[in-house]
Amino acid sequence: MRIALGIEYDGTAFCGWQTQPNRRAVQDALEAALAQIAGEHIATMCAGRTDAGVHACEQVVHFDTHAVRPLTAWVRGVNTLLPDAAAVRWAVEVGEEFHARFSAYGRRYRYLLLNRPQRPGLWRGRCGWLHHPLDVESMQAAAGALLGTHDFSAFRSAECQAKSPIKQMRQAEVRRQGSMIIFDFEADAFLQHMVRNLVGCLIFIGKGTRPVEWMTELLEQKDRKLAGLTFPPDGLYFLGPLYEAHWGLPQAKDDVLEGLSL
Amino acid sequence: MRIALGIEYDGTAFCGWQTQPNRRAVQDALEAALAQIAGEHIATMCAGRTDAGVHACEQVVHFDTHAVRPLTAWVRGVNTLLPDAAAVRWAVEVGEEFHARFSAYGRRYRYLLLNRPQRPGLWRGRCGWLHHPLDVESMQAAAGALLGTHDFSAFRSAECQAKSPIKQMRQAEVRRQGSMIIFDFEADAFLQHMVRNLVGCLIFIGKGTRPVEWMTELLEQKDRKLAGLTFPPDGLYFLGPLYEAHWGLPQAKDDVLEGLSL
Repeated sequence: MRIALGIEYDGTAFCGWQTQPNRRAVQDALEAALAQIAGEHIATMCAGRTDAGVHACEQVVHFDTHAVRPLTAWVRGVNTLLPDAAAVRWAVEVGEEFHARFSAYGRRYRYLLLNRPQRPGLWRGRCGWLHHPLDVESMQAAAGALLGTHDFSAFRSAECQAKSPIKQMRQAEVRRQGSMIIFDFEADAFLQHMVRNLVGCLIFIGKGTRPVEWMTELLEQKDRKLAGLTFPPDGLYFLGPLYEAHWGLPQAKDDVLEGLSL
Repeated sequence: MRIALGIEYDGTAFCGWQTQPNRRAVQDALEAALAQIAGEHIATMCAGRTDAGVHACEQVVHFDTHAVRPLTAWVRGVNTLLPDAAAVRWAVEVGEEFHARFSAYGRRYRYLLLNRPQRPGLWRGRCGWLHHPLDVESMQAAAGALLGTHDFSAFRSAECQAKSPIKQMRQAEVRRQGSMIIFDFEADAFLQHMVRNLVGCLIFIGKGTRPVEWMTELLEQKDRKLAGLTFPPDGLYFLGPLYEAHWGLPQAKDDVLEGLSL
């Protein structure tokens, strides 16, 4: 039997999604809890691996098991066994054609940047920070250049294992709400560090260090060495993967960050 | 010279505002940092003491010092010495008639309650939680009974040291945003645990365990033993004190929780 489940986590408590020898990855915590419910070893496959410190509003995983359990056992039962920085939000039975990673037609990420003279206190670990004033309008204009299908090699980490650097960007928006600047991205898939690198470049443009046209140049030159800084993981939220409705997965309409109209 | 400053903090990192023998209170951290900048002992007075686990978007304090420093030293300098869960937002020189506690004509508190079947993961430590569905309309109606001047003894902790239980409630609102229920209160002052006790009672009404009229009965009976549970500190945010404009304090219009239109 194949089960899909949605899980949220506070990235500050983990060393990223993918299993680690020190067992402090989200995957380690989840697989240990699932194994205890199932009474057998469980291997999970996720929709999008997140790096250390990156948060998830909804990571989606699938796993196969011989154990027959009510769906609530995969939610409430697992939540009693998970560290408090992670919580399963839902679980459904899916056909074995479903694959958390390959069935997703898109992924959504959000970056929160506190833009004020003082570093974060209340939001520590949950936002990036820049004291220098930023021009949101020029960042928004530059983000527009990202839309469409491009080779994103300029924004790819050296360790990125993706087969192709060509991705389709469907949403790239920058807006300000109070002292927070919010970056929203949707693409079919993302390269490693791609959002954090994009944010770093947009910030160079927002500061006026580079012109709006720089984003188009970077896309054309495809050279990571020319692009900006990789911004810290603290402000990065994996809002979740997107699946066609026919898979029957719950739509996380009540997402907290969404609900707060961030 | 008297200085007033605004400070925000993540309450999960501290054992409350007030100084403690273990030195893990916000006041201990702030006074240690201020003393290092001033080169002398500094004693602070705050607008509203917060309990362990309670957050502050803007706590206001004042202190007297012989040290003459640029105002940036009391902000940026102190922030380099504070734990990352606290940050000074501003500092201004004030006359010695200003008193952080006695000059405040009001205080604002917000309580965030995650209302969904699954416990929080991403928002752990930053919201209360109830899995039982709540009727926001009846809670809003009951909150209306709190407006005006009342004896709030029914919502006072046994250890509360306030001289009078009579307070003037100017705002008491309940609304839902996504899976979060937001409780907003403004009063001239609050008794110890008052917001957490009010939230506990409103939740009894929202569950249908008690009728809307129960809130009026509790106010009239003035008996703590009749009221509901004290809700956990995790969801409580001190939005800040209110001062007349003539004091010349910055208005924290860019407050993150405000900006996020929570």
